[in-house]
Amino acid sequence: MRILFHSPAHKAGPWLDGLQAALPEAEVAEWQPGVPPADYAVVWSPLQQLVDDQPRLKALFNMGAGVDALLKLRLPAHTQVVRLDDAGMSVQMAEFVCQAVVRHFRELDAYEADMRAGRWSFRRPRLRAEWPVGIMGLGVLGARVARALQGFEYTVHGWSRSPKAIDGVRCFAGREQLQDFLAASRILVCLLPLTPDTRDILNRDTLGRMMPGGYLVNVARGGHLVEPDLLELLDRGQLAGATLDVLREEPPPPEHPFWGHPRITLTPHTSARTLRDESIAQIAGKIRALERGEPVAGVVDREKGY
Amino acid sequence: MRILFHSPAHKAGPWLDGLQAALPEAEVAEWQPGVPPADYAVVWSPLQQLVDDQPRLKALFNMGAGVDALLKLRLPAHTQVVRLDDAGMSVQMAEFVCQAVVRHFRELDAYEADMRAGRWSFRRPRLRAEWPVGIMGLGVLGARVARALQGFEYTVHGWSRSPKAIDGVRCFAGREQLQDFLAASRILVCLLPLTPDTRDILNRDTLGRMMPGGYLVNVARGGHLVEPDLLELLDRGQLAGATLDVLREEPPPPEHPFWGHPRITLTPHTSARTLRDESIAQIAGKIRALERGEPVAGVVDREKGY
Repeated sequence: MRILFHSPAHKAGPWLDGLQAALPEAEVAEWQPGVPPADYAVVWSPLQQLVDDQPRLKALFNMGAGVDALLKLRLPAHTQVVRLDDAGMSVQMAEFVCQAVVRHFRELDAYEADMRAGRWSFRRPRLRAEWPVGIMGLGVLGARVARALQGFEYTVHGWSRSPKAIDGVRCFAGREQLQDFLAASRILVCLLPLTPDTRDILNRDTLGRMMPGGYLVNVARGGHLVEPDLLELLDRGQLAGATLDVLREEPPPPEHPFWGHPRITLTPHTSARTLRDESIAQIAGKIRALERGEPVAGVVDREKGY
Repeated sequence: MRILFHSPAHKAGPWLDGLQAALPEAEVAEWQPGVPPADYAVVWSPLQQLVDDQPRLKALFNMGAGVDALLKLRLPAHTQVVRLDDAGMSVQMAEFVCQAVVRHFRELDAYEADMRAGRWSFRRPRLRAEWPVGIMGLGVLGARVARALQGFEYTVHGWSRSPKAIDGVRCFAGREQLQDFLAASRILVCLLPLTPDTRDILNRDTLGRMMPGGYLVNVARGGHLVEPDLLELLDRGQLAGATLDVLREEPPPPEHPFWGHPRITLTPHTSARTLRDESIAQIAGKIRALERGEPVAGVVDREKGY
């Protein structure tokens, strides 16, 4: 069995060593144009050339949860696309989203700014019941985020393409329930996969339907958000602010209006980082299962796009 | 039955109305010197004069969790001191501490500062296993904070005066185990009551025993922390930073060195605010129980000081 590794964003050495240690029976190598045909490839933002060069691949393992970059490629039908299921990402996502929600609900950034300006300030505590959180996308990450927010006694709503059931979460589904979901949400967390259906889903119309003074947390993909629409809603005061971990262009160009915007908290696509050891263990386990002819979790439905 | 209300920090009207509505059989009034003797008083930072003036009081209800201000008074032996048990405070404390821990562990303040400076930065993810959190004080608030941090898969240790047991938390107890507890902690959360035993417990010696590059979160009382010692440890690089919601003097004087300190995040004693409706419901329930001769939770042991 031969396994290839390719990523423009990660140092190959530790990944090659880790995969080799986890699968000592395999031949593990970094992909180069023209290397002998392999059975599996572990990739991040791969080139079309890799796919064209490796027609025998049984599976492409994506080093992350979102497979939008991979699905842009022309792939042979027999090559499965497998995403990371969790591998330490859902806990990162849960804590990242919770800190963003808590900072906004509790007005901590405002208090801290007051203190930096030398003011010991007082604000009337907000009522938790008036700050329901809506989560778009109820997969592994969305469900974990919902559970964490419930632990802090937030009212949590969920929205997904197909109906889901999560204890204590009012679940909406499909385009026809999107408006009701938005109208019931004051903080909106986007954890959707990026597909043709969900591109631009955060726009003037949808964000404008949220409860007044709402707050957006986008930890999915920059392509979900129509960026000028967010600026307009912030200017009009319909939205109070946003935490954005992802942008249409990463890094954004120097003239991008989000840099330094007073109501936008930016982080550089770091809400749920791929953890090497956990990811290698998961991918190795899945390769073993596939070799035994068993099904594995995380196989992407190319129709749906996730 | 007569109930008095007194606080220099809260508007009396809504509290009087709320207590009256919850206990329609009682006569509820704001305390003034010379008002007729009452059975109960609901107070925050009360004056010695109130106690001297009201020798018949069966119980003094404190509008918060920490009773250090109340225990400074000379109180008759028959007047019980009762603190708020939870009343919506533990969830606030849990979310406040979690956001402080997550922001430090995940380096979010550093990422956000980079972004404000126009830099899309990259840092190697930290390993959660290398950031154990130690919680000092394992009462209602400490136990809730421990549970919330466990939900985010942190290793949690606890320390308290008397031995406690919390699932999944390595619990240390007493002065003789304090050093081992500190040596096992990289992030330290103080949730202790302020007593003669715990005053100044966060000092050069104790904080200096934490794992290197540690982080302090003080959400208990300013009197726990020897403030110049913290500055020294930050200057020496032994501690990486601190989140302080409480200070020795609140508000601190304009020349206080914590104002604007680059490694100290300050908030104005807001980590767990007293919520009026929840507090009134709890106090009314306890007054009814006491009137029926039943025991109530939250009676302070004046010997121990909490």
